Amino acid sequence: MAVNLKPPKPGDLLPVKGVRLGVAQAGIRKSGRKDLLVVALAEGAKVAGVFTQNRFCAAPVQVAKEHLASGSPTRALVVNTGNANAGTGKAGIADARASCEAAARLLGCDAREVLPFSTGVIMEPLPLERIVAGLPACVADLREDNWARAAEAIMTTDTVAKAASRRAGGGAAVTGIAKGAGMIRPDMATMLGFVATDAAVSEEALEQLLTDAAANSFNRISVDGDTSTNDAFMLIATGAAGGAAIGGAKHDGYTALRDAVLDVSRNLAQAIVRDGEGATKFITVQVEKGRDEAECAAVAYAIAHSPLVKTAFFASDPNLGRLLAAIGNSNVRDLEVNSVELYLDEVQVARDGGRAPGYREEDGKRVMGKSEITVRVVLNRGAATTTVWTCDLSHEYVTINAEYRT
Amino acid sequence: MAVNLKPPKPGDLLPVKGVRLGVAQAGIRKSGRKDLLVVALAEGAKVAGVFTQNRFCAAPVQVAKEHLASGSPTRALVVNTGNANAGTGKAGIADARASCEAAARLLGCDAREVLPFSTGVIMEPLPLERIVAGLPACVADLREDNWARAAEAIMTTDTVAKAASRRAGGGAAVTGIAKGAGMIRPDMATMLGFVATDAAVSEEALEQLLTDAAANSFNRISVDGDTSTNDAFMLIATGAAGGAAIGGAKHDGYTALRDAVLDVSRNLAQAIVRDGEGATKFITVQVEKGRDEAECAAVAYAIAHSPLVKTAFFASDPNLGRLLAAIGNSNVRDLEVNSVELYLDEVQVARDGGRAPGYREEDGKRVMGKSEITVRVVLNRGAATTTVWTCDLSHEYVTINAEYRT
Repeated sequence: MAVNLKPPKPGDLLPVKGVRLGVAQAGIRKSGRKDLLVVALAEGAKVAGVFTQNRFCAAPVQVAKEHLASGSPTRALVVNTGNANAGTGKAGIADARASCEAAARLLGCDAREVLPFSTGVIMEPLPLERIVAGLPACVADLREDNWARAAEAIMTTDTVAKAASRRAGGGAAVTGIAKGAGMIRPDMATMLGFVATDAAVSEEALEQLLTDAAANSFNRISVDGDTSTNDAFMLIATGAAGGAAIGGAKHDGYTALRDAVLDVSRNLAQAIVRDGEGATKFITVQVEKGRDEAECAAVAYAIAHSPLVKTAFFASDPNLGRLLAAIGNSNVRDLEVNSVELYLDEVQVARDGGRAPGYREEDGKRVMGKSEITVRVVLNRGAATTTVWTCDLSHEYVTINAEYRT
Repeated sequence: MAVNLKPPKPGDLLPVKGVRLGVAQAGIRKSGRKDLLVVALAEGAKVAGVFTQNRFCAAPVQVAKEHLASGSPTRALVVNTGNANAGTGKAGIADARASCEAAARLLGCDAREVLPFSTGVIMEPLPLERIVAGLPACVADLREDNWARAAEAIMTTDTVAKAASRRAGGGAAVTGIAKGAGMIRPDMATMLGFVATDAAVSEEALEQLLTDAAANSFNRISVDGDTSTNDAFMLIATGAAGGAAIGGAKHDGYTALRDAVLDVSRNLAQAIVRDGEGATKFITVQVEKGRDEAECAAVAYAIAHSPLVKTAFFASDPNLGRLLAAIGNSNVRDLEVNSVELYLDEVQVARDGGRAPGYREEDGKRVMGKSEITVRVVLNRGAATTTVWTCDLSHEYVTINAEYRT
């Protein structure tokens, strides 16, 4: 199913000093699989996070934001799959707090030092007792070389576990995991991405790294245009690799670390699209020469969200007029359609408001038959550029989402 | 396929005095079916229209707007299916003008007195010579009792012809036809709706009628969230029924005529949703007690456009947390989710930010199993209300749109 995506090999994932992970099978919704993860952080670790903009944001998102804002250090993350604890009202908030308290008792820290995360079905009560009962097994399992098993434990409709790892400058490790396949149109970040480094970073630099990485990875993907209630992207820096803290964007080592964090984040974000529900194609939408990045993104998302464009990709049918219709729907003010150029990989499809004179159906067909395709739109009205990654819309998407709860 | 929708019986459609319709088989794209329509209007008929907001608006839309703006009376409409003449650059404009000229020669009028309309595949050259060759047969076929055949001649992926008819106050007839099944999220009007009356109406009153009718019918439906390049909704008043012209909203007869026009327009708009590509369910989304109509519409469309909500309806699965997630995604500022109430028909599903205490899965299942369902969202922050009609997302939608050009 997934487009050119393989599960991580445990040996490929660098341990991050100061980050231990433990998983367990808590029986939260489906039996026979790991569904609970605890991430324990060494003293002094710094954590920054961005969360969903969905107004029905989940109880764990509310509690995690509150704990981060309290000024307490973060010593642990508790992540369950199978139930989103979203649309669960006051009871959901109490359940999220109770799961933090249970983890804090086991780890000997304060409940505010624990951040909760959930993913799964919305508007069903969290099975708190099963989570509490599963936590001791997670804690007993805590190990620095557990990233691959952690990636598996947070999967829902994912068919492939998602993890990536890079060595940054100065020898620091950057390793991350993510989950997600549907309800993917992150609006700050996606449920769930966790990236950690053992580099030492100031709080200010960590926030900057987080913002940069989110903007160019998780905030540039879409499977189905639906923003989840539970999106969260967390960046952790333990400082356990030693060395002076990177204090800001101008300091030594910032660029190398940013490149590594961005590389890991983008790899994870693209893995979510490659494993998009029912995906058979991985589509890169690149919009160039816009007045600003916002209008480039509007055009890119109009393409990425059009069911008609997505079904044409699924069918490998160069019904490319649908791309023009999508561009025309992007609500970009004063868009002059006669200036727009459209390319499919290297094939020029449209210009001067219509089909390019040199375009041949067989060229369109050839590119549409590939499993990885770049749609390039040149607006010719400025210098801004952006890139969004998406997938096609197949029968399998309907099947997966029609049968999600069965 | 279509949800509780039957084709019109010719006898059910009232002729409109001063409106004659003729159809022909011009072989524009598929053989063996009527695909060309001419509507001839008596002298003195008034015409008002609203058109797509898609920036890649089709050549016939550009030419029709220009002809309407020229101040010339309108004596005929030429409508072809099978080819949208959109994304066709300057050649497309020339082709649209040429089809008006050909019709004008046959009817003995000026080319500016003819409005062109096209629907079908985007970014393929219009087969002008076949249209010109087909026009004489249309003209020879012109009759006042030809509405049902006209409705058939404008179908593309429609499975059922769409027409409706009512008698307004004072005995005037109101009859209309429409086409559309996919690429439906009209942003002014849908491709294609034509409603005519033989009542006498001033230009000012006609514009008012058009705006009222569009806002509460074609502008309140969505199949897949894609706005077509060719949307057009035309309202015609011939005055041939006699009587004093209705001069404005406060004049005698305006309300009765408006009710009839709105009834016909809404019937046609709902028919498009009932015949939505792959539709198995007809969904009414009613949003109440919003601050203004815009925010009610934002919430309604967030629900109507969510692929996850639509696949849940297809599966008859009361996975209703997806409705909360969609409401949360509607970008309504300061939406207080704890005040939102959600109902499925008469069943209260959610309140206080979570599942309603009295909600039972079997009640959700019972409503979801029906072919017509009302989703009612009560925002509890104002007095505005709006209603949007949509359908589910099925395997058949993917099949239809993956195979559209084959």
